[in-house]
Amino acid sequence: MDAVGPSPEKITSLQNPRVKRLVKLRERRERDEAGLFLVEGYREVRRALEKQVRLQELYYAPDWFLGGNEPALLDQARQAGAQLFELSRDAFAKCSYRDRPDGLLAVAPQWRKQLADLALGPRPFLLVVESIEKPGNLGTILRSADAAGVDGVIVCDAVTDLFNPNVVRSSTGVLFSVPVVVADSAAVHAFLRERRIRIVATTPDTPDLYTGADLRGPLAIVMGSEQYGLSAFWLRESDQRVRIPMAGQADSLNVAMATIITLFEAVRQRSGDPPSR
Amino acid sequence: MDAVGPSPEKITSLQNPRVKRLVKLRERRERDEAGLFLVEGYREVRRALEKQVRLQELYYAPDWFLGGNEPALLDQARQAGAQLFELSRDAFAKCSYRDRPDGLLAVAPQWRKQLADLALGPRPFLLVVESIEKPGNLGTILRSADAAGVDGVIVCDAVTDLFNPNVVRSSTGVLFSVPVVVADSAAVHAFLRERRIRIVATTPDTPDLYTGADLRGPLAIVMGSEQYGLSAFWLRESDQRVRIPMAGQADSLNVAMATIITLFEAVRQRSGDPPSR
Repeated sequence: MDAVGPSPEKITSLQNPRVKRLVKLRERRERDEAGLFLVEGYREVRRALEKQVRLQELYYAPDWFLGGNEPALLDQARQAGAQLFELSRDAFAKCSYRDRPDGLLAVAPQWRKQLADLALGPRPFLLVVESIEKPGNLGTILRSADAAGVDGVIVCDAVTDLFNPNVVRSSTGVLFSVPVVVADSAAVHAFLRERRIRIVATTPDTPDLYTGADLRGPLAIVMGSEQYGLSAFWLRESDQRVRIPMAGQADSLNVAMATIITLFEAVRQRSGDPPSR
Repeated sequence: MDAVGPSPEKITSLQNPRVKRLVKLRERRERDEAGLFLVEGYREVRRALEKQVRLQELYYAPDWFLGGNEPALLDQARQAGAQLFELSRDAFAKCSYRDRPDGLLAVAPQWRKQLADLALGPRPFLLVVESIEKPGNLGTILRSADAAGVDGVIVCDAVTDLFNPNVVRSSTGVLFSVPVVVADSAAVHAFLRERRIRIVATTPDTPDLYTGADLRGPLAIVMGSEQYGLSAFWLRESDQRVRIPMAGQADSLNVAMATIITLFEAVRQRSGDPPSR
């Protein structure tokens, strides 16, 4: 026993109920039922603590540690209220969903933000993504949105679970800081209209270039899904449809790449530059 | 026997020398010694054939096929001169480097382009990347370069093998069409200077924004490596150093994302828009 919490219980059995639960939490259904998700990896756990994500449990296996900073991180997590459990090398390998585990895996409560929770200034800047399918793309999109300084990301008609381990990972912790709301398209559309936020949708099927759209005022950029592009709903309900000019192969730009291009054109214009002629 | 080639020899043994060789070709050293590389997957094999990559051998396993178009692709490959080999489910699984094999894996000769092979018009547009480490990033960068319509990509002081299976895959076949040259930095610099191509390097350590640089004329955009950024050589030998403005976490933009942002600002300017004031 020490001052900040009970001494860790060491788990070596692959049949241990905690090990089994960690494996189950890879499944969306299990996560949703428990209202929990997994945060794996040194960088991710550190980011979660920085962003005040309340880690309930932190599993660690010194056999897998890559550096020397892990004990300090464990202390920090314990002081923030996490319960610590030491795992044997094999037990950790069973729980890890990574190719190369680094010996740290936490469990944290999920959260749900509503549209009304978004803090919007006088000139809102939002990214709306529709039915993104690949967790890696959603994570990359969150990183782009963070770098572009959006007020929030709205995921419409979500296919991918926001708390999928691969979203957590590919977002490099941005999931813990950028406001993300999951909602259905009709509610999002009503929310944007009410606040007089201009809706600019990207699609290959328009002559208008994204650089010619005025992206300076209250703005929501809407991106479609990988496979189907934008739905008829958003194509119809947008104020402007724009395309990104493409040389080369038709599929060279995926949705994550198209998103970052559009977001940074908005950043350019919003810093004072006009749209193109 | 049919008109276009010998009937396939079916391979079932995991000890078959061809199976063993395919596994070995995942290693760079083996690829370099043999002067060969692997093209795995329906989409990749189709793209390779479209782009006149001379497939020497095509291994296929009907047990893994996902659709109904594979026989036509096999015919096409045979007519283009590839030798066909049928593999059992298990033998193919051993050769595949994918999580979900789709039953097609080809072997093709590597190629080497020189700087002098680049076809440059009066207003060259080049991308130079330095020591990129992750094959996935290099593949994504090739896709961006293709979409932006560059005349070529120059990889300086290559760390990642251009013919790494993950570059082939993540480039979605762009590797087969975009001219890529591997060369050392000094030679690349001399090449650019000789042709009076403006060198614009991206780095966080400058007050100048990328949108303020004039990217309209003969241009080489230079990007550093994931871990170390741009080398002192390129920082010193560039005509202008520019940065991308970043909100949020310091590491939200990786090198592939920074590349696509910079390339598409160049595309914008080169279509007639001025740089920012």
